[in-house]
Amino acid sequence: MAKPSLLGVCVIGTGRAGMIHARNFSSGRVPEAALVAIVEPAEPAREAARRELRLEQVYTDYRQALADPAVDAVVVAAPSERHCSIVVAAARAGKHILCEKPMAMNARQCDEMLAAVDQAGVKLQIGFMRRFDAGFAAARQRIDAGEIGRVVLVKSLTFGPSIPKPWMYDIRQSNGPLSEVNSHDIDTLRWFSGSEFEEVYAIAGNYRSPDARNSHPDFYDNVVLSARMKNGMQGSICGAQGVRYGYDARCEILGENGLITVGSLAAAAVTTHSAAGSTTPIVRSWTDLFQDAYRAEDEDFARCIREDRRPRAGGIDGKAAVEVVNAGNLSIRERRPVRLDEEGATAA
Amino acid sequence: MAKPSLLGVCVIGTGRAGMIHARNFSSGRVPEAALVAIVEPAEPAREAARRELRLEQVYTDYRQALADPAVDAVVVAAPSERHCSIVVAAARAGKHILCEKPMAMNARQCDEMLAAVDQAGVKLQIGFMRRFDAGFAAARQRIDAGEIGRVVLVKSLTFGPSIPKPWMYDIRQSNGPLSEVNSHDIDTLRWFSGSEFEEVYAIAGNYRSPDARNSHPDFYDNVVLSARMKNGMQGSICGAQGVRYGYDARCEILGENGLITVGSLAAAAVTTHSAAGSTTPIVRSWTDLFQDAYRAEDEDFARCIREDRRPRAGGIDGKAAVEVVNAGNLSIRERRPVRLDEEGATAA
Amino acid sequence: MAKPSLLGVCVIGTGRAGMIHARNFSSGRVPEAALVAIVEPAEPAREAARRELRLEQVYTDYRQALADPAVDAVVVAAPSERHCSIVVAAARAGKHILCEKPMAMNARQCDEMLAAVDQAGVKLQIGFMRRFDAGFAAARQRIDAGEIGRVVLVKSLTFGPSIPKPWMYDIRQSNGPLSEVNSHDIDTLRWFSGSEFEEVYAIAGNYRSPDARNSHPDFYDNVVLSARMKNGMQGSICGAQGVRYGYDARCEILGENGLITVGSLAAAAVTTHSAAGSTTPIVRSWTDLFQDAYRAEDEDFARCIREDRRPRAGGIDGKAAVEVVNAGNLSIRERRPVRLDEEGATAA
Amino acid sequence: MAKPSLLGVCVIGTGRAGMIHARNFSSGRVPEAALVAIVEPAEPAREAARRELRLEQVYTDYRQALADPAVDAVVVAAPSERHCSIVVAAARAGKHILCEKPMAMNARQCDEMLAAVDQAGVKLQIGFMRRFDAGFAAARQRIDAGEIGRVVLVKSLTFGPSIPKPWMYDIRQSNGPLSEVNSHDIDTLRWFSGSEFEEVYAIAGNYRSPDARNSHPDFYDNVVLSARMKNGMQGSICGAQGVRYGYDARCEILGENGLITVGSLAAAAVTTHSAAGSTTPIVRSWTDLFQDAYRAEDEDFARCIREDRRPRAGGIDGKAAVEVVNAGNLSIRERRPVRLDEEGATAA
Repeated sequence: MAKPSLLGVCVIGTGRAGMIHARNFSSGRVPEAALVAIVEPAEPAREAARRELRLEQVYTDYRQALADPAVDAVVVAAPSERHCSIVVAAARAGKHILCEKPMAMNARQCDEMLAAVDQAGVKLQIGFMRRFDAGFAAARQRIDAGEIGRVVLVKSLTFGPSIPKPWMYDIRQSNGPLSEVNSHDIDTLRWFSGSEFEEVYAIAGNYRSPDARNSHPDFYDNVVLSARMKNGMQGSICGAQGVRYGYDARCEILGENGLITVGSLAAAAVTTHSAAGSTTPIVRSWTDLFQDAYRAEDEDFARCIREDRRPRAGGIDGKAAVEVVNAGNLSIRERRPVRLDEEGATAA
Repeated sequence: MAKPSLLGVCVIGTGRAGMIHARNFSSGRVPEAALVAIVEPAEPAREAARRELRLEQVYTDYRQALADPAVDAVVVAAPSERHCSIVVAAARAGKHILCEKPMAMNARQCDEMLAAVDQAGVKLQIGFMRRFDAGFAAARQRIDAGEIGRVVLVKSLTFGPSIPKPWMYDIRQSNGPLSEVNSHDIDTLRWFSGSEFEEVYAIAGNYRSPDARNSHPDFYDNVVLSARMKNGMQGSICGAQGVRYGYDARCEILGENGLITVGSLAAAAVTTHSAAGSTTPIVRSWTDLFQDAYRAEDEDFARCIREDRRPRAGGIDGKAAVEVVNAGNLSIRERRPVRLDEEGATAA
Repeated sequence: MAKPSLLGVCVIGTGRAGMIHARNFSSGRVPEAALVAIVEPAEPAREAARRELRLEQVYTDYRQALADPAVDAVVVAAPSERHCSIVVAAARAGKHILCEKPMAMNARQCDEMLAAVDQAGVKLQIGFMRRFDAGFAAARQRIDAGEIGRVVLVKSLTFGPSIPKPWMYDIRQSNGPLSEVNSHDIDTLRWFSGSEFEEVYAIAGNYRSPDARNSHPDFYDNVVLSARMKNGMQGSICGAQGVRYGYDARCEILGENGLITVGSLAAAAVTTHSAAGSTTPIVRSWTDLFQDAYRAEDEDFARCIREDRRPRAGGIDGKAAVEVVNAGNLSIRERRPVRLDEEGATAA
Repeated sequence: MAKPSLLGVCVIGTGRAGMIHARNFSSGRVPEAALVAIVEPAEPAREAARRELRLEQVYTDYRQALADPAVDAVVVAAPSERHCSIVVAAARAGKHILCEKPMAMNARQCDEMLAAVDQAGVKLQIGFMRRFDAGFAAARQRIDAGEIGRVVLVKSLTFGPSIPKPWMYDIRQSNGPLSEVNSHDIDTLRWFSGSEFEEVYAIAGNYRSPDARNSHPDFYDNVVLSARMKNGMQGSICGAQGVRYGYDARCEILGENGLITVGSLAAAAVTTHSAAGSTTPIVRSWTDLFQDAYRAEDEDFARCIREDRRPRAGGIDGKAAVEVVNAGNLSIRERRPVRLDEEGATAA
């Protein structure tokens, strides 16, 4: 019995998310797919990845990968501002695409990507891996099963330990933490409410990033966003960067008949009880918390291609999140609620 | 050794909160204070209270109680709209006052009350009993001890099972759930942030009260409020009435170095593990959850009078919460952020 | 409407348990009962209690209290070895009795007490206050409701911070931790299994009490006891004294269809999440953990007398626990399983 | 850069444990190792495994695998009674061995296996995968770090949903649940106490297996074992089969200065709060709970071979557990404590 031909995957960008995908596709952790190459312009990172992954093929430019016939699909884990051009080129080269969040910097870019993907007939999946997390997925099932009745309010928070990098300081360029961190929460609200955003209001401030304070007074590392959804439901999102206690991603869904809570800070089921109290270790990083979710996401990506079906989170979902990011940043700047259908609301 | 003369307490209003106070002061549960009378205009409630509390003295009108020399102090648990006139009269009669939240309907009323109390030299304590709850108080101590560094964001929620009563439907008259339910959360934000509110933005909707829908389209039973505090911190409050799973009052305080979480849904430390999962009973009512806090509050009220010191939550705190309620309701009506120092922001 | 005559209560012994009862009956915390006197031979303790409780009547000898017509009932919180003589005398004096655990030192003493109580027609309640704890009582209700089917195994542990006192070092005299600490667990096993003990096996050691090591090699501060119940169920008890993390009383009931877990270490619903992990305060003492249970126990004692009904835990329950203590200590000494119906098994 | 030659692994037995190992070694989930064959005498199981694992080589007899030069190492997941003969043969064939627990049926078999392995100079690892579980491993680190001082008592329980199979009914043949289920708890006690067992006492009964009752009155599906460890520490183990709420593996370590609790029933970090209470899903199977532990175990096995070092759990550990199983079963039969160094105590 011969092995079926494996899906050849190339990961573009070897940052933390890129390496998670690369490790998943390497060594067969994802059935019927295999890592065949990576793209990384920076030499030391490229060599480290080549060694760790025992890869024969590494590229410095994504265009080389797109020309490689062994590459059937790409994972786009390059800086967010380059997502648009890479995805468009990948689609034109006939490659299936798993694009990390945020999908792009603004709605216009998303439209361009959607058109290219549509025209090429390739799959585009957006890296909202929480949709593949056991707890979040169980919450969705419980909502669907009617356990809490009609959803009224979805609250989602992401507090992470990453120190904002200087490239993020200029919010106009980077789209800031709403984009880099809270894209996940935005997608969760859409996913659990089954609705698009209608209007958002956000407040933000810089509490832990003194380096950015003088040069970039607009920079924020803490944000509170409230939302009216189109179907009348309510939403609330909190985001924080540089927190010093661990990685914290929790969600609460209030329905007419009950409440669902998702997420836990506990890194392991071990607690020490001493004179200082009961102490449980906290999850240190999203790479630990969502390790299984990333694997399930990568598996589903391969399966979507094989079975020719629609990804659980596609370009439409990516675009919707980008629009909320842009509207949220506008709300922060202008200190007023912003409707998603306002002129210019969803431009960066 | 002769007993010292006890503080004579009269409880005005025998609704749920009134009866909690009445039971505490009855039968010596509060040292050095004793319930000497109640005021209740409705005959059946008055008789039921008289029987349960074994009281000899019951009044139908609070003015009778104010004329009673055995009454040293009153607990004002009458409908919120009557707080102002009762408190002013009680102060003029030289009685110390524990006034339930909300203190009053608007800032002007609060000012009137503060002036009367000030002139009479009596104590005025506002019923923010969460300040006396073991968990909330421990959180405050931990913040003071620097366990999480400078506070960045305070999130507080109160979701309760009470079905909104028709008198609450007209928000302009009743001040709505923000007043009746979330006064506690507003006080918690001030208490934990050590700051006044600067600006609020709130969204609200009616999800579980179909009876009110046609007659009172402005009525809401679910609200999300975000706040900028004067010292730059952030706040987030959620409120819900008529939830069907229990009484839920939780708070999270994000600091520069850590997070404090307060509150629990568990009604008792007992869990059944069966094929249906692990199931723990949920607190059914604030009367259960905060039973010890009410007793501690009543004890502290008596102690403040005896030791002639300032109550932990006084008229200033009551007024500040009323102002935020009014600004929040204005924000809901006008769909825009409202600064507390705007003209008219804190009028009802 | 005149107050009904109150039940006059005298507390004999003003140690920690005695003062809990004294405070409950003082100042009306227990409806329709009132503390009228205490008995305490030691002068400083007696005076401290008199002052705190604002008592006019204090006695140095329990016989004085038994002669006082104002005393309708006594709470026996004297040292365990004196329980028998005091209870017998109290019964003969026609006083109702709430006797702290352990009921006595051996089965013979218990029989003497039971006979005296029976003859006098007074109530005898044993201080198994866990039967009045919300969590433990809910567990019993859930068992009765069939939530876990027929009970198979009951596990109960009590780990406490109290350092064993020298009077406890001679196990033959004091009956040791099995008596002073684990009487509660023994009662819990009987209560949850609905069965008497058939056979016990216990191992014990001294791990934290170096002072006792040389003079009393038999002394133990840690014990593991397993039991066959008469109805075929299994039991397991662990006890520890001098633990340094708090007071820990938990129970698990394994049934044919599920498991019930009872108890929690959390002293308050507050957790700090920091780089050191998530930390929750631990209950420091049984006086905190079971404060509400003691009050409910005292209320039920007064109600049993008023309504002339059988106490929830009576002399039969007290004697059964004493027998298991004695059999357990014999098992420790002889390193073998001991049947409760063996000759001499339940003599001290 | 050429790939290093991979370790060729053959899994013997395709039951649940066997398939976990097979899936881990298949498709590269374990770096530098690869599944090259399986052994399964039963045709349907063999074909199912072949298909799922896309294997070219499957064997019906383990001797064929031992003759295959592509096989460098075997995982022995055959019925326990066959472990001895397979391991001895594998050692003689120069194959490294990961042998599932229990290692064998008695100490004599273990000695034979140890001698064969020793002579052949191959690795023998025993499948105590809890040593690789994040929570259990963290507990061990915390003990080593002195967080709770010297260990006093280790309690460990395993309650599982598996219905005992008829082959297990004859305890003399099968060694029963102590062997099949509690081998893990026995190893945990040795691991956390750092000591061998000195004496055990066990009680057991059949509560959920009516089919076995008449034919095999000695069969038990519930067991409570207490132990004296050689270094003076205490141990307590509970085991249950056929429980209907899920898979439950928890441990508590009481030290001089604190307590460590390990394990959790929660299958996912999701809870529904409704009128029925707060409900969290329970882990259904050890295959879910210990999935990561099995992978870590398999990785460590490959690494031990590559780096020529001693496995974390070796034959000595396997033998020690078998001896405790035998002593425990003898204690159940003879209703008395059994010393491990008694004549005949550790024969089956």
